[in-house]
Amino acid sequence: MLVELNPDLAGYVRDFAYGEVYARPGLGLRERELISMACLAVQRLPDQLKTHVHGALNAGVKPDEIREAFIHMALYAGFPTALAGLKVAEEVIREVQAPEYSPLEAQDKGRSRS
Amino acid sequence: MLVELNPDLAGYVRDFAYGEVYARPGLGLRERELISMACLAVQRLPDQLKTHVHGALNAGVKPDEIREAFIHMALYAGFPTALAGLKVAEEVIREVQAPEYSPLEAQDKGRSRS
Amino acid sequence: MLVELNPDLAGYVRDFAYGEVYARPGLGLRERELISMACLAVQRLPDQLKTHVHGALNAGVKPDEIREAFIHMALYAGFPTALAGLKVAEEVIREVQAPEYSPLEAQDKGRSRS
Amino acid sequence: MLVELNPDLAGYVRDFAYGEVYARPGLGLRERELISMACLAVQRLPDQLKTHVHGALNAGVKPDEIREAFIHMALYAGFPTALAGLKVAEEVIREVQAPEYSPLEAQDKGRSRS
Amino acid sequence: MLVELNPDLAGYVRDFAYGEVYARPGLGLRERELISMACLAVQRLPDQLKTHVHGALNAGVKPDEIREAFIHMALYAGFPTALAGLKVAEEVIREVQAPEYSPLEAQDKGRSRS
Amino acid sequence: MLVELNPDLAGYVRDFAYGEVYARPGLGLRERELISMACLAVQRLPDQLKTHVHGALNAGVKPDEIREAFIHMALYAGFPTALAGLKVAEEVIREVQAPEYSPLEAQDKGRSRS
Repeated sequence: MLVELNPDLAGYVRDFAYGEVYARPGLGLRERELISMACLAVQRLPDQLKTHVHGALNAGVKPDEIREAFIHMALYAGFPTALAGLKVAEEVIREVQAPEYSPLEAQDKGRSRS
Repeated sequence: MLVELNPDLAGYVRDFAYGEVYARPGLGLRERELISMACLAVQRLPDQLKTHVHGALNAGVKPDEIREAFIHMALYAGFPTALAGLKVAEEVIREVQAPEYSPLEAQDKGRSRS
Repeated sequence: MLVELNPDLAGYVRDFAYGEVYARPGLGLRERELISMACLAVQRLPDQLKTHVHGALNAGVKPDEIREAFIHMALYAGFPTALAGLKVAEEVIREVQAPEYSPLEAQDKGRSRS
Repeated sequence: MLVELNPDLAGYVRDFAYGEVYARPGLGLRERELISMACLAVQRLPDQLKTHVHGALNAGVKPDEIREAFIHMALYAGFPTALAGLKVAEEVIREVQAPEYSPLEAQDKGRSRS
Repeated sequence: MLVELNPDLAGYVRDFAYGEVYARPGLGLRERELISMACLAVQRLPDQLKTHVHGALNAGVKPDEIREAFIHMALYAGFPTALAGLKVAEEVIREVQAPEYSPLEAQDKGRSRS
Repeated sequence: MLVELNPDLAGYVRDFAYGEVYARPGLGLRERELISMACLAVQRLPDQLKTHVHGALNAGVKPDEIREAFIHMALYAGFPTALAGLKVAEEVIREVQAPEYSPLEAQDKGRSRS
């Protein structure tokens, strides 16, 4: 949990990132999470990408739209980045679609990681 | 114009990027352009970013939504990348809102550059 | 296998990447694989780099030439990127030189991953 | 060990990186290691970052200063890069503060890796 | 000026970046500016790098220490990134050492840009 | 000229980069320059890329092979990076093919910049 890793950074993520920037009215959560996913895939940060694939699903982005987003990224960042991102996405989608999945618990885990 | 720079690469952009991938039904053009913008801002490719800020405006993304997208990217790629992207975006927005602007001509120019 | 991960992206890799671009006459396979390796090392994509170290060996690049390519990259991307790439390369070279290695099977695996 | 991975590259790291550049009088070791850490975090090279968190601790940078450096990086490279770097740093700090830790052995291991 | 480019982002830079994170006691301003410089050089953001070479000089980093920082980065990000950064740094150093230079005005300009 | 920008860094480029690493027998100059070009295009360093497109031409890489190298990179780093690199390459090719071009002078300029 981020709060255990570093309470100060966790505080900034909670208050500034989620409390302030995500809460701004100018752009929907769906679009925010797609942008977050793109930034993380291009920077090759698989753990944080996982968190935001969860975030995108929670914001109502459909699994097939997430897949499509990575296929689209192949044009702008190359096939290998698209592939690496898609692998992370499929893991999360499988996790979420498993019968024993509890969305609230996963969201907590996701949020706390960033 | 890309077609003059390299007709083969221009052909792939036209047929594969726009003709095939952009034409897929899985994700709206609005969302595709937001993802393209994020990929380009994080990779610091200002000329191609300019093209896709045009693309986003043509796809119906509002100027304030484009600004908001770059503010959002500050969280995921840092303030300087957000700032550099926002500067490019404001240039395009000013260009498009100028009285002498012709959207068709700009779109052609944009498409041909990537 | 990429085809199981995402048949559409697998199709683009097969038809556009390998079928169209790799098949162009303008540059030899040896040189193409060296360029692919450099792009992947600089982007820090170790899984895809592994695939293309296999690809380079299959294209006739010698193990010592592959090692030399990473030493060369130290100049252009820094020692840590060179080192991280070299580690991946040595793993693949050991794999390929092991007595139980079957090149065809590995090539299939490699191709299918990107 | 780098010397086993590739003796030539190990030689360049020993003679050019450590023997020549690190030995220059213009900047203290403390500052050099902070810069190394920043370069490696931004390039997402976790193994080499680990080595230089060790290096920073050996150069007298305090654990809390290392944590602070990553919080600072959130501004310039985004929260996810800061978080990913902080995770690596905490691992090293825990390792170093464990009762069974031997600094000389770790330094050797670190140096040899880059 | 950033405040004219986007008052909201300018507010976050002023309140969160400078008001909150830079003001934390855990690390000196000198070290913070060296880390900022490294992050910006590795991300190839020359305009923002210029701002923080100014920032480093204002924080008491000597011109020769700034030059040394970029020579050091050659090891971790390659010679071309070091060179590109050094070029930006020399421009700022020349600017600051010119007889007509007014530090307050430059600092204002710098701050406002990021 | 790099030697005027920073004589120490110029010395390392001359003695370590060109004198030591480029002089190693394990890989031809042609291949070294293709790898340098790929590293620089992916890192978006247009000035240094220019130098190494010159380098590649001097090493006997044909203009059409250079163009092909960038088309190939579209697969591994996306279309926009390929396009941005190709634009730089075409400038250099035009420069070299102009009637007033003097290869020795350009090589000197190139070498001195890195």
